[in-house]
Amino acid sequence: MSRGKIPVIETFGPTIQGEGMVIGRKTMFVRTAGCDYRCKWCDSAFTWDGSEKHRIRMMEPAELFEELIQLAGNNFDHVTISGGNPALIGEAMNDFIMLLQEHGMKIGLETQGSKWQDWFLLVDDLTISPKPPSSGMETNFEILDEIIARLNPAAFSLKVVVFDDHDFAYAKKVHKRYPAANFYLSVGNANPNEKGDISSRLLKSLDWLWGKVIEDPEMNNVKALPQLHALVWANKRGV
Amino acid sequence: MSRGKIPVIETFGPTIQGEGMVIGRKTMFVRTAGCDYRCKWCDSAFTWDGSEKHRIRMMEPAELFEELIQLAGNNFDHVTISGGNPALIGEAMNDFIMLLQEHGMKIGLETQGSKWQDWFLLVDDLTISPKPPSSGMETNFEILDEIIARLNPAAFSLKVVVFDDHDFAYAKKVHKRYPAANFYLSVGNANPNEKGDISSRLLKSLDWLWGKVIEDPEMNNVKALPQLHALVWANKRGV
Repeated sequence: MSRGKIPVIETFGPTIQGEGMVIGRKTMFVRTAGCDYRCKWCDSAFTWDGSEKHRIRMMEPAELFEELIQLAGNNFDHVTISGGNPALIGEAMNDFIMLLQEHGMKIGLETQGSKWQDWFLLVDDLTISPKPPSSGMETNFEILDEIIARLNPAAFSLKVVVFDDHDFAYAKKVHKRYPAANFYLSVGNANPNEKGDISSRLLKSLDWLWGKVIEDPEMNNVKALPQLHALVWANKRGV
Repeated sequence: MSRGKIPVIETFGPTIQGEGMVIGRKTMFVRTAGCDYRCKWCDSAFTWDGSEKHRIRMMEPAELFEELIQLAGNNFDHVTISGGNPALIGEAMNDFIMLLQEHGMKIGLETQGSKWQDWFLLVDDLTISPKPPSSGMETNFEILDEIIARLNPAAFSLKVVVFDDHDFAYAKKVHKRYPAANFYLSVGNANPNEKGDISSRLLKSLDWLWGKVIEDPEMNNVKALPQLHALVWANKRGV
């Protein structure tokens, strides 16, 4: 019995997860349409800015699962769900996650922590990524507190994208507020539309971020990582 | 009461762990001298080839811990022990690990899996890295079987460095033999003495390795990663 549909803007893979707690993992990607945020540097703005509205398909969980099998056969056992903000979707997402898990898949999912869903508790690799000042968004810490209080600290991670000193200060604040959570810093990609090789620029940013972490005793228990896919494949879509 | 000393060839940090299961983690490094292997492409051959014999110091666990504090004060809570092969060291290593943990530190340790030590069970982030054909070494799978049988699959990872197709075939064999173990592939650095920026060469190798993983249904549950420190800092020593 269906309990609604998922607005899907793209599916692709198998590919490699390039960032965060599952970095390096072979995975399929499902990207949902729609977001309650409008981050200035969003690398997937096409999920919410209307520019690719015509690509959005309302899909049943079983139909979406079938599409992944069509794409990749038995060549995957992990699915990454990203957006947009997949936490805008309720029961249909719950059903999709359960369907995947019935087939032996592990699930990675990323959301900014602006809205709770009970199915967060099902996700194998859950990343909550509150947005720093450079995004132009403001974190509602009351909501974030409630979300994090409901999660088992061993069962999710926090990830903050860092572009500049203000973002780093924000990241410290988040890390201090939730000291038990696994904490990741991710280097921001200042120009997600730049053509050609961007690895030198991104590695320079990572060097800067590592320097900040190395010199700061309040940032001992953190992992600072790049977006590996952007290093290897630049800003290419669909990989 | 001391139970022996540790042959230390270098200590440095705080820095960032660039590879494997703790990739991106802020950490101190302790490198022990001496190895039972002679890998052709070893990036730390100075630990066993005699070239830096004069730097080896026999250190008590407490003395070594004190040196880390002198180096970094309170600016770390994770220590990576590498070599050489740290598994050549018995009780003194046990005592060092326990001393660090009494002070709230987490321990990462890497060894090739040629020799068991009871203190493996104490290590927070244990990496067993059997060496592929390109190393010129041959894995004793009887010993490796015994070591892996004693470990909790959730409490360690396997890591295989991959330079070429033969190494990839070896990695598949290892992954198949120990399917429950967390499995990492790491891109080999063909020239650990090359001067200057080596990031393009390494990213090209990672692209190749990702391609191999992506097309192979027997390599679904793996993570394929670069050596991030070599991308950011090239072949610089002591970082």
